[in-house]
Amino acid sequence: MSSKAVASLQAEVNRLRHELQTLKVEGESTVAGETMFVGQYLVERLVQLGVTKMFGVPGDFNLGFLDFVEDHPKIDWVGDCNELNAAYAADGYARVNEGKIGVVTTTFGVGELSAMNGIAGAFSEHVPVLHLVGVPSTSQQKEKPMLHHTLGDGRYDAYYKASQQFTIAQAVLNNKDTAPAEIDRVLTECVVMARPVYLMLPTDIAYERIPARRLKTPLNIEPPANDEEVEQFVLDEIVKLVEEAQNDVIILVDACAIRHGVKKEVEELYKRTGFPVYSAPMGKTAVSESYERYGGIYVGSVSNPVIKEKVESAKLILSVGALKSDFNTGNFTYHIPTQRTIELHSDHTRVQFAGFPGIGMKRLLPKLTSRLQPFKEDAVQFDVPKFQLPVPQEDNNVISHAWLWPRVGQFFKSKDIIVAETGTSSFGVLDIPLPPDSIFVSQILWGSIGWTVGATLGAAFGGLDRGLGRTILFVGDGSIQLTVQELSVMLRWGLKPIIFVLNNSGYTIERYLHGMTRKYNDISNWKWTKLLDTLGGEEGKTCKSYTVRTKQELSDLLDDATFARADVIQLVELVMPKEDAPRALKVQAELSGKTNRYVAEF
Amino acid sequence: MSSKAVASLQAEVNRLRHELQTLKVEGESTVAGETMFVGQYLVERLVQLGVTKMFGVPGDFNLGFLDFVEDHPKIDWVGDCNELNAAYAADGYARVNEGKIGVVTTTFGVGELSAMNGIAGAFSEHVPVLHLVGVPSTSQQKEKPMLHHTLGDGRYDAYYKASQQFTIAQAVLNNKDTAPAEIDRVLTECVVMARPVYLMLPTDIAYERIPARRLKTPLNIEPPANDEEVEQFVLDEIVKLVEEAQNDVIILVDACAIRHGVKKEVEELYKRTGFPVYSAPMGKTAVSESYERYGGIYVGSVSNPVIKEKVESAKLILSVGALKSDFNTGNFTYHIPTQRTIELHSDHTRVQFAGFPGIGMKRLLPKLTSRLQPFKEDAVQFDVPKFQLPVPQEDNNVISHAWLWPRVGQFFKSKDIIVAETGTSSFGVLDIPLPPDSIFVSQILWGSIGWTVGATLGAAFGGLDRGLGRTILFVGDGSIQLTVQELSVMLRWGLKPIIFVLNNSGYTIERYLHGMTRKYNDISNWKWTKLLDTLGGEEGKTCKSYTVRTKQELSDLLDDATFARADVIQLVELVMPKEDAPRALKVQAELSGKTNRYVAEF
Repeated sequence: MSSKAVASLQAEVNRLRHELQTLKVEGESTVAGETMFVGQYLVERLVQLGVTKMFGVPGDFNLGFLDFVEDHPKIDWVGDCNELNAAYAADGYARVNEGKIGVVTTTFGVGELSAMNGIAGAFSEHVPVLHLVGVPSTSQQKEKPMLHHTLGDGRYDAYYKASQQFTIAQAVLNNKDTAPAEIDRVLTECVVMARPVYLMLPTDIAYERIPARRLKTPLNIEPPANDEEVEQFVLDEIVKLVEEAQNDVIILVDACAIRHGVKKEVEELYKRTGFPVYSAPMGKTAVSESYERYGGIYVGSVSNPVIKEKVESAKLILSVGALKSDFNTGNFTYHIPTQRTIELHSDHTRVQFAGFPGIGMKRLLPKLTSRLQPFKEDAVQFDVPKFQLPVPQEDNNVISHAWLWPRVGQFFKSKDIIVAETGTSSFGVLDIPLPPDSIFVSQILWGSIGWTVGATLGAAFGGLDRGLGRTILFVGDGSIQLTVQELSVMLRWGLKPIIFVLNNSGYTIERYLHGMTRKYNDISNWKWTKLLDTLGGEEGKTCKSYTVRTKQELSDLLDDATFARADVIQLVELVMPKEDAPRALKVQAELSGKTNRYVAEF
Repeated sequence: MSSKAVASLQAEVNRLRHELQTLKVEGESTVAGETMFVGQYLVERLVQLGVTKMFGVPGDFNLGFLDFVEDHPKIDWVGDCNELNAAYAADGYARVNEGKIGVVTTTFGVGELSAMNGIAGAFSEHVPVLHLVGVPSTSQQKEKPMLHHTLGDGRYDAYYKASQQFTIAQAVLNNKDTAPAEIDRVLTECVVMARPVYLMLPTDIAYERIPARRLKTPLNIEPPANDEEVEQFVLDEIVKLVEEAQNDVIILVDACAIRHGVKKEVEELYKRTGFPVYSAPMGKTAVSESYERYGGIYVGSVSNPVIKEKVESAKLILSVGALKSDFNTGNFTYHIPTQRTIELHSDHTRVQFAGFPGIGMKRLLPKLTSRLQPFKEDAVQFDVPKFQLPVPQEDNNVISHAWLWPRVGQFFKSKDIIVAETGTSSFGVLDIPLPPDSIFVSQILWGSIGWTVGATLGAAFGGLDRGLGRTILFVGDGSIQLTVQELSVMLRWGLKPIIFVLNNSGYTIERYLHGMTRKYNDISNWKWTKLLDTLGGEEGKTCKSYTVRTKQELSDLLDDATFARADVIQLVELVMPKEDAPRALKVQAELSGKTNRYVAEF
């Protein structure tokens, strides 16, 4: 039975248990129950899940529901400039607010389809986002009149069908009696599977009254239990392999360790066992990068050679939450035989060639840690290279990538949220150690340029929720053009990110993939330092902007205490050479370019 | 048999005929044929169709193909800021370039999903747009590695499946031998059905060599013939009804008269018969609004009362290209019995309650005109109200909607392209007569706010192709925030639209639908007159911006000859009261609000 089938069964068991529990609560009270609107019920469930911000854009069909949101004291409506940015923001919010979900509310057709790329990206990278769509009333859905926002041929289900491709669960809340159960089911799946879900809320249903008592039964969002017998077997197998490897074991932490909430369990594992620990790019900051037995980022052939050697020569790799995409693995160049690999995932485990569906790491890890703890004394004899990147001496004043990333590495502080756009930024940041308790945010698998601007908005809000520090964004001049208007929303809310815009005249990652000097990789040069003032700020008062062209200028800025304090939103234009890129990007792009099989120009 | 089934059959007949024809040409030559790349073949077909601009955003998987576009002397690559704006631009281009298609090129997953709302809007409003997607190579599609831009679970067909909801034909060009035929099939459907289509072009296939001879056989893009016998019957029926109506016949022109290219045929009809002619909102400028027997805009109950009376009391309505959406019909308030209605469409005809699938208006209209011409003498005795809207006298200096629209009506000139955003603009422009040979561009059925900024880019290019005049955009402050970055592309290309931004502090159409004073209908106030300068322009040199707050200021500007000459891109901020709206919008919103069934606040 596949992992997916097991997960489905477990979800159904949980759903039935939850429904029984709500009935018990309802049965116990003989007092005529308090009622509430369906729309309010939905908002209360979100508040119960700890959501403080709802992203989206108002539109016909969702306006009535927005009243509930605006009026609720514990959740704020963040009006975004457009729906794609709103979905990006919900994604960024959920990534930083580990364990919580992001919510984006749009309107039927025009709004929800605009958001689709944001939802698909969250699906791909295991980010729990609720896509809530305000839709026409139940009677309109039966009669299917040619309303605005429809396709003109009566297909009211077209958007639902499209969304099914990119969400793990969906519901059309067409019946007030089943609506609460459907809301609970879909929200539960969102959290437990850490994937986007989709709800259609008709205008009339939002205002139907339902019993409120269900809210007393919290959603059951714990991951399902592992089958005891199988789990025991798996543990025995793993311990056997560790023994055979004579403790030459390395832990490799990847995306799903963060996305499926096992950072603490993993920390227990590596601290109590003493096994050296490395991270894939998408797992960066799952482990504190200043931990003394943390060795840095492993990316297959693109890795720092010392790291590559250490990881690929280890006798056993304990991989946690792997998501082996091309950019995450140096274009699939892991030279690690399957015989030497154990993979822990949220819903299955692999031990060498054997697969164990339904054995999830959340429950497995603490037991594994207990069993492996005795090995610590031997494990610590394996040394771990120090993960560092000194600022290189360059005999010019140009802001090169080779210099920039280690230099900003010196600027980062504990609890910073560091957002890096797909391209030179996401590759450049990889090689620098980030401070303890900092969070690295990037979209390395989905790779939609422009995502980080919306994600920064959401991440900054998430950081406020968690009492984190500064939010710092690195985005290319090409990428920011896709989604620039969201700066306006940051200003409106008094958020204070530092936005570094890499002005190197074009889509640099594209140049490296193909078309280095092609015109289609050029962009318009904007007045970067006027953006904040134009989009709702007051330069010098509610925002500050800078241009730096030399190493010295940037260094001076980074060392400026006021700048570093980040008590106002700031944008820094970094003027950089057109054809420079971080080492890792150059290598990756060359590998990807070969597989794209663009034949040499005719 | 349904219209759809008939159309499918006709399409297949045409396709087979075309394929036979291409083989004939290929067979005639014994010289070893010239070859070309599949990507080049595709570009040549587009050039044959008269396309001069391709919109889109470069991304991995489409870069190799873009080389062909950049190198072709007859087609320009317009790099847009994001894919949704690019799709909007392709739509606007196709609307103005009647008979041609728009083309938007994106990349696998991240690009194409971002464009989806633009494609769906084109589908809904019958606009022929090719959505071309660069995708991974055929071998990657077989092996399904976890590439960037994928969902992580191997579903390489997810985006295709989603796109099927919003396109009339699709093809995955996975085989070089069938690729040209598939390209021809899909492009033909795009033109003949006037709907979006979808092509996936793998990186390797783009560079496969194929015989070039097929290009000698042009695509067959004529609408199919009508069945002679049925057509004759239909003509007889219509003539009979016209006689019974004693020539009290009104022609009502709507969206599809434009979208399916029968403006000339309709002009022949109304001029040779003398029947009074009116237009639905979506048909505005299908008929010259200065034609003496043109009576104006009919929108059901929302109509000017004189027009409503004339249309609804006529004994027979000859409706051409109806698309009866809510905003296009005063919320479905046509008080015209079916017994008095004849509807001509691109692929079927309705005569009272009878439906005639497969009888299309392109072929029918000229024959109908011949048969009805004898009635002219009697028809002209039915008088037609003059369509006009004088500028009202108001005893204040506020820029009200009631004053604004007739006043800008005086500013418009022949061959202007007037683009009106969904909201106060699209409703406000309705009641003013536009000059002869002008084109009204709006998205009244799909209604996606922000669409007009991208559409203006495309429309301006289309205007250049056709030797038209100025492009003038009216967009709300809320709407422009969704898609503002496309101003940058207009600047980059030296286009010269006049952009009126209605600064009335919020999403006014939403306020009227629901939540007049709600915070979620507020927006950030941007420095509108700094936008062009910030996004790549030089204020005073390559762009000009103005703020007008009073009737006098606006009038002076409109009367300024330099302003009117529009030889540089210009943005005008109109400061207007928050809660004012055109009459038509207020009425429509009230009707829509009732059907939304937002129960009164609790």
